Amino acid sequence: MTSFTQIAPLLEGQAIEVPSWAYGNSGTRFKVFGSPGTPRTVEEKVADAATVHRFTGLAPAVSLHIPWDLVDDYTALRAYAGELGVSIGTINSNTFQDDDYKLGALTHVDRKVRQKAIDHHFECIDVMNATGSRDLKIWLAEGSNYPGQGDIRGRQDRLAQSLQTIYARLSDDQRLVLEYKFFEPAFYHTDVPDWGTSYTQVAALGDRAMVCLDTGHHAPGTNVEFIVAQLLRLGKLGSFDFNSRFYADDDLIVGAADPFQLFRIIFEVIRGGGYAPSNPDSEVAFMLDQCHNIEDKIPGQIRSVLNVQEMTARALLVDRDALTAAQESGDVLGANGIFMDAFYTDVRPDLAAWRETRGLPADPMRAYAESGYQQQIEADRVGGTQAGWN
Amino acid sequence: MTSFTQIAPLLEGQAIEVPSWAYGNSGTRFKVFGSPGTPRTVEEKVADAATVHRFTGLAPAVSLHIPWDLVDDYTALRAYAGELGVSIGTINSNTFQDDDYKLGALTHVDRKVRQKAIDHHFECIDVMNATGSRDLKIWLAEGSNYPGQGDIRGRQDRLAQSLQTIYARLSDDQRLVLEYKFFEPAFYHTDVPDWGTSYTQVAALGDRAMVCLDTGHHAPGTNVEFIVAQLLRLGKLGSFDFNSRFYADDDLIVGAADPFQLFRIIFEVIRGGGYAPSNPDSEVAFMLDQCHNIEDKIPGQIRSVLNVQEMTARALLVDRDALTAAQESGDVLGANGIFMDAFYTDVRPDLAAWRETRGLPADPMRAYAESGYQQQIEADRVGGTQAGWN
Amino acid sequence: MTSFTQIAPLLEGQAIEVPSWAYGNSGTRFKVFGSPGTPRTVEEKVADAATVHRFTGLAPAVSLHIPWDLVDDYTALRAYAGELGVSIGTINSNTFQDDDYKLGALTHVDRKVRQKAIDHHFECIDVMNATGSRDLKIWLAEGSNYPGQGDIRGRQDRLAQSLQTIYARLSDDQRLVLEYKFFEPAFYHTDVPDWGTSYTQVAALGDRAMVCLDTGHHAPGTNVEFIVAQLLRLGKLGSFDFNSRFYADDDLIVGAADPFQLFRIIFEVIRGGGYAPSNPDSEVAFMLDQCHNIEDKIPGQIRSVLNVQEMTARALLVDRDALTAAQESGDVLGANGIFMDAFYTDVRPDLAAWRETRGLPADPMRAYAESGYQQQIEADRVGGTQAGWN
Amino acid sequence: MTSFTQIAPLLEGQAIEVPSWAYGNSGTRFKVFGSPGTPRTVEEKVADAATVHRFTGLAPAVSLHIPWDLVDDYTALRAYAGELGVSIGTINSNTFQDDDYKLGALTHVDRKVRQKAIDHHFECIDVMNATGSRDLKIWLAEGSNYPGQGDIRGRQDRLAQSLQTIYARLSDDQRLVLEYKFFEPAFYHTDVPDWGTSYTQVAALGDRAMVCLDTGHHAPGTNVEFIVAQLLRLGKLGSFDFNSRFYADDDLIVGAADPFQLFRIIFEVIRGGGYAPSNPDSEVAFMLDQCHNIEDKIPGQIRSVLNVQEMTARALLVDRDALTAAQESGDVLGANGIFMDAFYTDVRPDLAAWRETRGLPADPMRAYAESGYQQQIEADRVGGTQAGWN
Repeated sequence: MTSFTQIAPLLEGQAIEVPSWAYGNSGTRFKVFGSPGTPRTVEEKVADAATVHRFTGLAPAVSLHIPWDLVDDYTALRAYAGELGVSIGTINSNTFQDDDYKLGALTHVDRKVRQKAIDHHFECIDVMNATGSRDLKIWLAEGSNYPGQGDIRGRQDRLAQSLQTIYARLSDDQRLVLEYKFFEPAFYHTDVPDWGTSYTQVAALGDRAMVCLDTGHHAPGTNVEFIVAQLLRLGKLGSFDFNSRFYADDDLIVGAADPFQLFRIIFEVIRGGGYAPSNPDSEVAFMLDQCHNIEDKIPGQIRSVLNVQEMTARALLVDRDALTAAQESGDVLGANGIFMDAFYTDVRPDLAAWRETRGLPADPMRAYAESGYQQQIEADRVGGTQAGWN
Repeated sequence: MTSFTQIAPLLEGQAIEVPSWAYGNSGTRFKVFGSPGTPRTVEEKVADAATVHRFTGLAPAVSLHIPWDLVDDYTALRAYAGELGVSIGTINSNTFQDDDYKLGALTHVDRKVRQKAIDHHFECIDVMNATGSRDLKIWLAEGSNYPGQGDIRGRQDRLAQSLQTIYARLSDDQRLVLEYKFFEPAFYHTDVPDWGTSYTQVAALGDRAMVCLDTGHHAPGTNVEFIVAQLLRLGKLGSFDFNSRFYADDDLIVGAADPFQLFRIIFEVIRGGGYAPSNPDSEVAFMLDQCHNIEDKIPGQIRSVLNVQEMTARALLVDRDALTAAQESGDVLGANGIFMDAFYTDVRPDLAAWRETRGLPADPMRAYAESGYQQQIEADRVGGTQAGWN
Repeated sequence: MTSFTQIAPLLEGQAIEVPSWAYGNSGTRFKVFGSPGTPRTVEEKVADAATVHRFTGLAPAVSLHIPWDLVDDYTALRAYAGELGVSIGTINSNTFQDDDYKLGALTHVDRKVRQKAIDHHFECIDVMNATGSRDLKIWLAEGSNYPGQGDIRGRQDRLAQSLQTIYARLSDDQRLVLEYKFFEPAFYHTDVPDWGTSYTQVAALGDRAMVCLDTGHHAPGTNVEFIVAQLLRLGKLGSFDFNSRFYADDDLIVGAADPFQLFRIIFEVIRGGGYAPSNPDSEVAFMLDQCHNIEDKIPGQIRSVLNVQEMTARALLVDRDALTAAQESGDVLGANGIFMDAFYTDVRPDLAAWRETRGLPADPMRAYAESGYQQQIEADRVGGTQAGWN
Repeated sequence: MTSFTQIAPLLEGQAIEVPSWAYGNSGTRFKVFGSPGTPRTVEEKVADAATVHRFTGLAPAVSLHIPWDLVDDYTALRAYAGELGVSIGTINSNTFQDDDYKLGALTHVDRKVRQKAIDHHFECIDVMNATGSRDLKIWLAEGSNYPGQGDIRGRQDRLAQSLQTIYARLSDDQRLVLEYKFFEPAFYHTDVPDWGTSYTQVAALGDRAMVCLDTGHHAPGTNVEFIVAQLLRLGKLGSFDFNSRFYADDDLIVGAADPFQLFRIIFEVIRGGGYAPSNPDSEVAFMLDQCHNIEDKIPGQIRSVLNVQEMTARALLVDRDALTAAQESGDVLGANGIFMDAFYTDVRPDLAAWRETRGLPADPMRAYAESGYQQQIEADRVGGTQAGWN
């Protein structure tokens, strides 16, 4: 097997965007539980995100969600983030929390509603221009709840038109990434339910339109790493929203539900040239999109970026030459054995030592717990309205 | 095939409880859309429920949810409902919206939290005593999100103890019905995830403890009518929460997603003696539990009770003697054909005529639309706080 | 609602290809049950297929599977079919029953194995040339059972090359249709697991390469009618393999498991211009692909084509203008009601009468049962080897 | 964390029954691939099973399947196995490969068919008496394919009667274990589809009737470790059929699809007292039930028992005291972290060393490959009929 020493250089520069909303409260339709220390402002969210980066070295950017992260001065926000050592990453639009969007936004039958949704994306692009963000991410929470309620195909055509208009507004160094999701909040049909739909829509737009793959947005049993491989092959994998799930879009900590799946996904990313440290041409963005409903949010994020890092190390350990040889000789058990050998290797001690050589804590979870940051924010952040999905 | 005339008497007395919360606002974790005319008080919810009954003759009871339906004087509420022609049905408890219940209620490791949850059920029993309700329904929204977070088995033991205490408080003419659910709001393990768990828990309690079957609370592909047949065989089917789903617990209008499944379920209810009009000994309660997130609420409920009635009529039309003969002769296509014949029969014209003979509108949906009730409540219900899940 | 009289002309010319293998024995991995009267030869299969057409007027073509339907003289077979009133339809290739294909065929790492599989398709094209078939259907039963066993992406590239070679061999009036399937017989990854993969592969080939949609080949919960609408929108829906399922690829009689789903699918076919009687430009082929493991095969096929016809009639009954009006006004319940009204209409009496006006039996199932055909073949087909999947 | 030294004693005596049929050919409904060296006789299967034990020390018993393993003299077979160092384990009945059982066996409407199936179980008990087997395992491959085909509830009643008769035939030291399965080979309803049904059926029989849990026989998303915990709590977990799956009943190598799930399952077994080395009172049988369709069979089985052993070691490493403390303090991330720490620990080097101290090869896979056994059986086993599912 490849040794840790061999792969260590490829761990340099791994970057995972953390989402601002992960630091605010989230929950289910039944209840949102609050917790002490939750940010009240965008700046406090950015500060928490920067804290994750400080303890891990893995999270140099924070993605924003508009309008949850509306501020008056994005240039100032960008500067503030920079002072804390992080940059502003992907800008996420929101077309699911306005009463006008009850039956659709970019797909709505009413031209005025569509234009309103398009205008919202124009605002997002303005934010991008101010923050220096590369990616506009569109998750389309649109669909219908009852058969016959909408014209499935007409909606698809309107979506294409709306996206075209938005795409045309981007500058040459900006990208549009279109996320797909199997279901929720619509329960009969969803307008972008699968990678095929996202792919065909972005392929019609142009080179700077890409697919965003949220690892929790698939039907039960879906082979997600296959989709990763396919999208990389087609040159259309734009970004990841990492999280994990046992059932539906559970939005649990990445790697928590099925660590082996995360390993397989990252292996295909590396194999397909989507991992920047081993392929400098890669533009695939690694992001988290999770809900810390019941666990502490900052350590939840630290745990998550560490999970991605640990599984990346394991995936890099796969002896690719030996694997190829076994595959080509039809040695089913041998090939699987080489693959599993890397997965079962405990990379944590080596990673701890490697972190220390780079001025990072060997155990970021423990270091955070002992740092006093949590106690500080719990003491400081009294009054005001805790951030959430609104 | 059996004729409509033959089955018409068996449609007499069909009763479906409607839930008070169906008239308030509901939504997903992303957004709750409001709509004009939504009730602000328990009394307004009861009035809407009574309206459904007035137009359909199918919904003589309304189930309440505590604390969403807290009032000072349940005797007065009971009298008010009676004046409107309906009674108070099942009382639903709530152990998922208090901060103390974040990690469990009846299963919590902390005895004080468990006692608080038990006390809440005692309050519900007090309400039952005042309203004359027979059933205390417990949906246990408890579980864990991460492997290792809780002691799965210890929680099961504590649940048994808590239920025992609650059950002991019931009077002899009251029942405890325990609902199961596959997942949500917990995303790793749920404490009562399947009928087997609900059954073994209530079987340990006694004769007046039963299972509540929510038709949307199963894993993908589950044969729900099999569970209906099994629970009736075991004498433990207490009640239904009807709704429909394409994916998870979508809570769509009953019969909307898969009308044929509803037909099969009701067929097994009738065959197993769980349909009161054809088996006076039956104590199985038919209830709705749905979310009208985007559609109008009162017509949504009218549509729902009509769907149950129409599918009941179809299920009654099955020529049971011919079916048995085909089954016993091993005639696969013949038996299936007899079954499908009833399903494909359009009972709507006969039902319309039958309704009119009983002083009900032939087309309750149209009659409601033309009645002016909706316009009236939209005009009247201005100000105040629209009811929802809180 | 639209009346039956209005839609009757659109029922003219509906054509459903029946598969030769439906008349042979099939089963599960556990057991294949035989039954009296099962065909021993290709000719007997064609005769049974012609019988289905004679009783229904719906099945003017029979699709073949190579090598299960190998004969020396396809010109003679074509003539024989013609005498019986049917034509030879789609030719299906088989790359899953040769020992060489254990680890792949068109995707195999070994160039010799790939060439063997390509050559098999050349033979199929020869058959097409002799039979006058338009479509070469490729179901790729390829994949892997264990992570690491194969190079997922390399296989995709080799598949593209193999398909290119096959496609180049087709004449200008022939088409290649590529079927996708979620899983089975491979249990970890499948090389063409979803419509997106099939679409991107055929889009790379050219205009005469299309997607084949088998209604049973999706993940649990997949909205199949959405895929139908999308593929029609993209101009890439080549053909259907109809059947139904409760769980996986159960291959039950079409419409048996979820009649409402079949209704929704056919509605989208019509709406999208894929139904030839209402859109003469349509080239979408309707086929069955089912397994009659325990039921009688010929009546199983009769039941199936009737189910498609009945559901087509219902889908045609949808009042499209009223539906559009309701959709555009945002009337969720109204639009759904218009849609359901057509589904719940019992078209069987009108269809029976319509059949009689065309010289067909009003009740094809009964007419077949009373015809003596089944008794005849049971008496005649003694000795020899019953046809099956080999 | 607990150290390997502490847990090593608990690895002593771990025993996993291997199934005789794993050494024969298996496949899908599409194709069964053969391979050189496949056993032709029961004795050769037992020899292969004994080989697995010789290289691993983990597989001291082999389970038989009647009639696949029919021999004239079971006493001789028992002696032969003993000479090779293994015993005969569970006896599996088969009621799915006789034409009479097409529509049912223990549930059939025809009393004669039921009696035939009961008599078959009596024969299996005779075999048990001769082989000294403790357990009669019944997997009921019964159900129906079409709604209406059978009387779901009547079948359940007949099943209860049939099981009663079989159970009464057992001696006091024998057990009946009833396996459940979500679907296949029946595709509409299955007579024992879930643990609840198996539990209620065996609970009605008596103390020596238990549930068999096949890890691949559940609906998508099912929390299998919850069922393990529940059955142990109810005192009704009789045995495991281990294997793994991505989709349906894929019957892949245990631990291959989701190693973390295997870890969670074994953790609950240990926690619930079902692991004999740490609870001498436990009578839970660990068995494999897998299909090596494309991989080599003997190394496939070696890999499997090693996977169970490795995951058992990891599960034993969980620091139960620390876990309980974290759970009781509501530390979600802490409790999960303790749990994951054990899972991520690489126990393989310690296990290799431990094996050597016990006279076993450090790397059983490599030792087998280098032993020449495979070459020997490939050379020896020429001619005859390779064993399979018949």
